[in-house]
Amino acid sequence: MYTFKELSEKVSQYFAAETFDGTPHQLYEPISYTLADGGKRLRPILLLAATDMFGGDIEEARYGAIAIETFHNFTLLHDDLMDRSPIRRGKPTVYRKWNDNTAILSGDAMNILAWRYLLKQPHRNLHRILQTFEATSMEICEGQQYDMDFETRNDVSIDEYMEMIRLKTSVLLGGALKMGALYADANEKDTELLYNFGIQIGLAFQLRDDLLDVYGDVSTFGKQTGTDIRDNKKTYMMLHALNKANGSQRDKLTELFSSSPADSEKKVAEVIDIYNSLEIRHDVEQRIEQLNNEAIETLRRISLPDERKQTLTEIANKLLLRNV
Amino acid sequence: MYTFKELSEKVSQYFAAETFDGTPHQLYEPISYTLADGGKRLRPILLLAATDMFGGDIEEARYGAIAIETFHNFTLLHDDLMDRSPIRRGKPTVYRKWNDNTAILSGDAMNILAWRYLLKQPHRNLHRILQTFEATSMEICEGQQYDMDFETRNDVSIDEYMEMIRLKTSVLLGGALKMGALYADANEKDTELLYNFGIQIGLAFQLRDDLLDVYGDVSTFGKQTGTDIRDNKKTYMMLHALNKANGSQRDKLTELFSSSPADSEKKVAEVIDIYNSLEIRHDVEQRIEQLNNEAIETLRRISLPDERKQTLTEIANKLLLRNV
Repeated sequence: MYTFKELSEKVSQYFAAETFDGTPHQLYEPISYTLADGGKRLRPILLLAATDMFGGDIEEARYGAIAIETFHNFTLLHDDLMDRSPIRRGKPTVYRKWNDNTAILSGDAMNILAWRYLLKQPHRNLHRILQTFEATSMEICEGQQYDMDFETRNDVSIDEYMEMIRLKTSVLLGGALKMGALYADANEKDTELLYNFGIQIGLAFQLRDDLLDVYGDVSTFGKQTGTDIRDNKKTYMMLHALNKANGSQRDKLTELFSSSPADSEKKVAEVIDIYNSLEIRHDVEQRIEQLNNEAIETLRRISLPDERKQTLTEIANKLLLRNV
Repeated sequence: MYTFKELSEKVSQYFAAETFDGTPHQLYEPISYTLADGGKRLRPILLLAATDMFGGDIEEARYGAIAIETFHNFTLLHDDLMDRSPIRRGKPTVYRKWNDNTAILSGDAMNILAWRYLLKQPHRNLHRILQTFEATSMEICEGQQYDMDFETRNDVSIDEYMEMIRLKTSVLLGGALKMGALYADANEKDTELLYNFGIQIGLAFQLRDDLLDVYGDVSTFGKQTGTDIRDNKKTYMMLHALNKANGSQRDKLTELFSSSPADSEKKVAEVIDIYNSLEIRHDVEQRIEQLNNEAIETLRRISLPDERKQTLTEIANKLLLRNV
């Protein structure tokens, strides 16, 4: 059994062995720029951890791991363009370093490159692995579209929000784990359980992200807090507060979340005051705890001895403590 | 053996049987808008014609045919965005009817949708079919990048231009034919010959497109002539004229192809005068003829009786006469 650290090193080695250059340079340089260094490589680590957990040979899953990270980075590249995000991992995003058209086309090529990696090694379960990858890819597009739709809607429900983050964030964790299980010939039931485990930790992870944006410590969270409030972003915190608020609080929240004042500190403080008085932090922490418990229970039901689940448990804990 | 007309009807039936709607609507409506009507469906027809030629069952190639048309339309959708083309098939392009982000994301989803179709039916040669599709897809991205690179370069050679159109246009015809052959278990040698046939007719088709933009009859060509000259586009005509021109003609051409005068009629007429004096039309027609002959010879070498090659010959003729 590999530990998290060992799997992380494996993934680094796999990526170090690939070259992403080619001609025309204008197409391949942004791919190399995006893939060559970087990121936590969480999804390929999850994929390999799943293969390893079921006693599979992680070398058989090698190109699946590279593929899922390539696809993930493609979605970030296009999302950054659509959201006009200037920085990713401390570096200018591709559309800013080059231009919009380069970001569009290099992203398209990365989407295709993911398939190239998947097809590199024939595998007895390849058809199911590819179908899992395809379904996951499409759902992520759907999630991104919902996220964009929500920006201009004022009637987003908590259920809709949860469905959006399931599609945008969780299915790729679930998909990575499911693909890993398929590489190891895991049985149908265990494969589905592991997929669900991925969904549950993905949802918990995203809610914790929403929470930390308000209550996080900048030094451990690694980014400025209050940005979701400044950007008028509909998060679990905000939607839950709207549901729980009385009339005047709701009016105040609605007003604050449609304003973009020069002095955003005051706005952030006012929103947090309302969250505090409604005990939103407690409620969200409880929801995260509940998802976490569901994930633990799902993992428990997988028909393997506990010691084989150690690495995945370790990764899930790291993920929820934001240590990965 | 199916005729061109029968295959064309088959493809229409295949597309009529698909629905492209789904939620979120903002994601799927542009896909439906793009795929539901439209286009000559040349690539799926070529794919089915290849399957049929080698005695395969075209129903086994059904989703391959849908996939390749879906992919082709994805590239048009993103190309129109990158090139800021307002109209496609007489309708506003997706980025204009909706917006840039919708065009990016719906295009991404169409790229993935093509893979969904490919995976719908397991096939004994699926791995090779998918690898052919992947390699073709990537080359098309490379071709589009070269095309964009050439806009700002003044030293594009004829060889580079031919390589660009091979990637941007021809490989998808070759790829469609090769996939069709693989669906029918054609042997390695015939499959490669058919691929090369596709490349050759693709190149001839593109050169004819360049020619007709200058010397075409609007009523049969279906679009305004002289647009490449107006847009300062580097075509085979233009690059060949630059090669053949004497010093003063070259200076004049270079000057004209870096100008965008209000009175573009005069500019177009001046360029055509130079083309005429250099007999560019004759040279291009000769090059097309040569490619055409190579294509006929390639098709001849495929180890099938002539009568099995009738439909593909018919399609190639239609293509080069711009009747399809």
